[in-house]
Amino acid sequence: MERDPRDVVAAKRDGKVLSEEELRGFVLSYSRGEIPDEVAAAFLMAAFINGLDDQETVALTRAMVDSGETLRLERISRPKVDKHSTGGVADGVTLVFAPLAASLGLAVAKLSGRGLGHTGGTLDKLEAIPGLRTDLEPEAFERQVEEVGCAVAAQTADLVPADGALYALRDATATVPSIPLIAASVMSKKLAVETDLVLLDVKAGGGAFMKTAEDAEALAKACAKLAAAWGRPARVAVTDMSQPLGDAIGNALDIVEAVELLRGEMRGRLRDAAVMFAGEALSRLTGVAMGEGRARAAAALDSGRALEWFRRMVEAQGGDPRVVDDPVGVLPRAPLVLPVPCPRDGVLAEVDAEALGRASADLGAGRRRKGEPVDPAVGVVFRPKIGDRLAAGAPLGEVHARDEDAARACVERVLAALTFGEDPVEPPPLVHGWYGG
Amino acid sequence: MERDPRDVVAAKRDGKVLSEEELRGFVLSYSRGEIPDEVAAAFLMAAFINGLDDQETVALTRAMVDSGETLRLERISRPKVDKHSTGGVADGVTLVFAPLAASLGLAVAKLSGRGLGHTGGTLDKLEAIPGLRTDLEPEAFERQVEEVGCAVAAQTADLVPADGALYALRDATATVPSIPLIAASVMSKKLAVETDLVLLDVKAGGGAFMKTAEDAEALAKACAKLAAAWGRPARVAVTDMSQPLGDAIGNALDIVEAVELLRGEMRGRLRDAAVMFAGEALSRLTGVAMGEGRARAAAALDSGRALEWFRRMVEAQGGDPRVVDDPVGVLPRAPLVLPVPCPRDGVLAEVDAEALGRASADLGAGRRRKGEPVDPAVGVVFRPKIGDRLAAGAPLGEVHARDEDAARACVERVLAALTFGEDPVEPPPLVHGWYGG
Repeated sequence: MERDPRDVVAAKRDGKVLSEEELRGFVLSYSRGEIPDEVAAAFLMAAFINGLDDQETVALTRAMVDSGETLRLERISRPKVDKHSTGGVADGVTLVFAPLAASLGLAVAKLSGRGLGHTGGTLDKLEAIPGLRTDLEPEAFERQVEEVGCAVAAQTADLVPADGALYALRDATATVPSIPLIAASVMSKKLAVETDLVLLDVKAGGGAFMKTAEDAEALAKACAKLAAAWGRPARVAVTDMSQPLGDAIGNALDIVEAVELLRGEMRGRLRDAAVMFAGEALSRLTGVAMGEGRARAAAALDSGRALEWFRRMVEAQGGDPRVVDDPVGVLPRAPLVLPVPCPRDGVLAEVDAEALGRASADLGAGRRRKGEPVDPAVGVVFRPKIGDRLAAGAPLGEVHARDEDAARACVERVLAALTFGEDPVEPPPLVHGWYGG
Repeated sequence: MERDPRDVVAAKRDGKVLSEEELRGFVLSYSRGEIPDEVAAAFLMAAFINGLDDQETVALTRAMVDSGETLRLERISRPKVDKHSTGGVADGVTLVFAPLAASLGLAVAKLSGRGLGHTGGTLDKLEAIPGLRTDLEPEAFERQVEEVGCAVAAQTADLVPADGALYALRDATATVPSIPLIAASVMSKKLAVETDLVLLDVKAGGGAFMKTAEDAEALAKACAKLAAAWGRPARVAVTDMSQPLGDAIGNALDIVEAVELLRGEMRGRLRDAAVMFAGEALSRLTGVAMGEGRARAAAALDSGRALEWFRRMVEAQGGDPRVVDDPVGVLPRAPLVLPVPCPRDGVLAEVDAEALGRASADLGAGRRRKGEPVDPAVGVVFRPKIGDRLAAGAPLGEVHARDEDAARACVERVLAALTFGEDPVEPPPLVHGWYGG
């Protein structure tokens, strides 16, 4: 860039609104390695504290998208949908949504990053399936989406490279939790893949990045605005993360749960969420009524049709397709499984979902640093939901661990994360609101 | 440090007040290279925007002092004084003050950094004298202060190393102009040298870092508070920099001017400032009345006594002592000297001192980047002061340059920096106020 990048930093430092050219020049220069990390760190902190307005957020996002390649997906004939969650505990919706929506005639093109959160991300979960690869080349990815109807793969370094660099820097410099910066990071990766609909699930609550529904709503609106600025249809839900969404908090354990759900054998909030997103996609992309879309999605789960698409996706990505018939037999298993018995009679009033996520991560299911491997076999299964009346000694779930010390410590942490009461407790709503259009 | 440094960054980001332990741990870890530049950059921007309170500024300064060695100066029997200017255009006061105060029986211990400003700093000016060295070891520095009465040398890397690192980072990240950060930087270096009195000259106006008297006053008060927190006597003046203080804007040119002044041959604001600071030091350290202190200082200039001490200091530091007899003959000279004639009849109403400084720097008298050499011979001499009534064609000064193109361009820039009027203009006061005790 022509201009001294410090002028851009100083302008944001002083609370000025940056022009599209200033932001674009700064971000592209940083992405090319022409601006040192410390200068970008000062910019990020200034942007964190003084904020970015809507136009600045659009300019930042556009520069991030333009820092790399975009995936046009022109060869795909069916309506294309992408779905993304901001991340929560026991949030296996994508694993179910992708084959479910594909089984309903949509094309699901899902590129994922590696989670830095408590537990592994969608890629880690899928990679628990022996042989399954997520490092698909763009060509192979697009071909699979066309032929199978869905693919879940790792983002390549060519896609929004500025985001990878900026995210690592934000993580290092305490500048992650900024709504414009998060929205730009999330949406740049969605906008770089040219689907017909973006579905976003912004999680709100103790187990999510956004602890309150208000913050989650602000992020949802920021993401919806970015999609609108691109003229890209997007529907953004704010959903509850005051407790784990499903029961499995791990990697292989989540695949077991997803298979159960795809077999139509499971009821509850995780199924409700998957049906809701699939119904939303079907309704938006094919014009069927919302109720009809949801009914078709539920039927695809109950009939085993969605499971068949999961099998095809696993097979296309090199994974062992027998996982759909005998998940427990095919997937890696932890040597030790300890039950978690209910400590008392009472109503489950609160669950510290983040604590459950951390307990599972400390067993090895998550990573502390970028690039660390995750242990596919370990994790926590926790079945009750807020409002359930439980009896002392009732089975709450299991801890899957490498050794007895780790397992026992984890059981203690699971129990410490629970609050019981005597009075009935209203379960939290699954959805706080929908945004975008 | 035990704690994740990002927690300290996040606390300042969120506007919290940091504890002494937090600031100390952060600064000392950074100084030891244990915290990466990008993390410190994020901290500096958060501190810039959200501020540091008095206690935080004390803690920051203390950590900076403790990052390195201190200079005890215990062998020096006379009252010890240090003088520092925040930097202005044609600000050669230190060159005169050091031998002048020494000739009055005080011990002047002056360690200087390399300027990053428009023109060279005091070290660059002194180094224009052939043979003169400013890289004195602490032992040699202290011995010279005791034997000669004054020494002006370069700070060693052992003295406040955290400041060198932080200052370079601030310069790179647009976090320089923060009053607490400037005060900590200035005062850490003064507090690390154990003199009996610190004299600070905070410049205010277009040619200074602090453009307004209000900002300069805030910085002066912050510096005075830091000295008070140490129990160290300090007197802080806010002085005018709405125009160049002296006439010479260069390096050798400033030495020529200093010698003229030390010979008692020059009158004006530069002499007034040198006499004022020497009188202040004498009064504070020996108990004489202020008027008497100033009178003795003026007499030492007029008698040639101060010049004799300058000769001794130059000689002690390896410089050619004939500079006091024939400065123009001894010092490097630029090949081309162009006169600057007054463009019109009128009263000099305004001078863009910063523009004059930059014009001189672009001739080669200043440095753009740390570590660059400066050209000792080149520069600008500009003699009129605000309020002077001038006639078209009258000599305003000269440009000393390497070639004719540079010289002509510089003359244009000097003239463009001047504003003339018809009505009488009141000269600005030399001193806006004094702070500290």
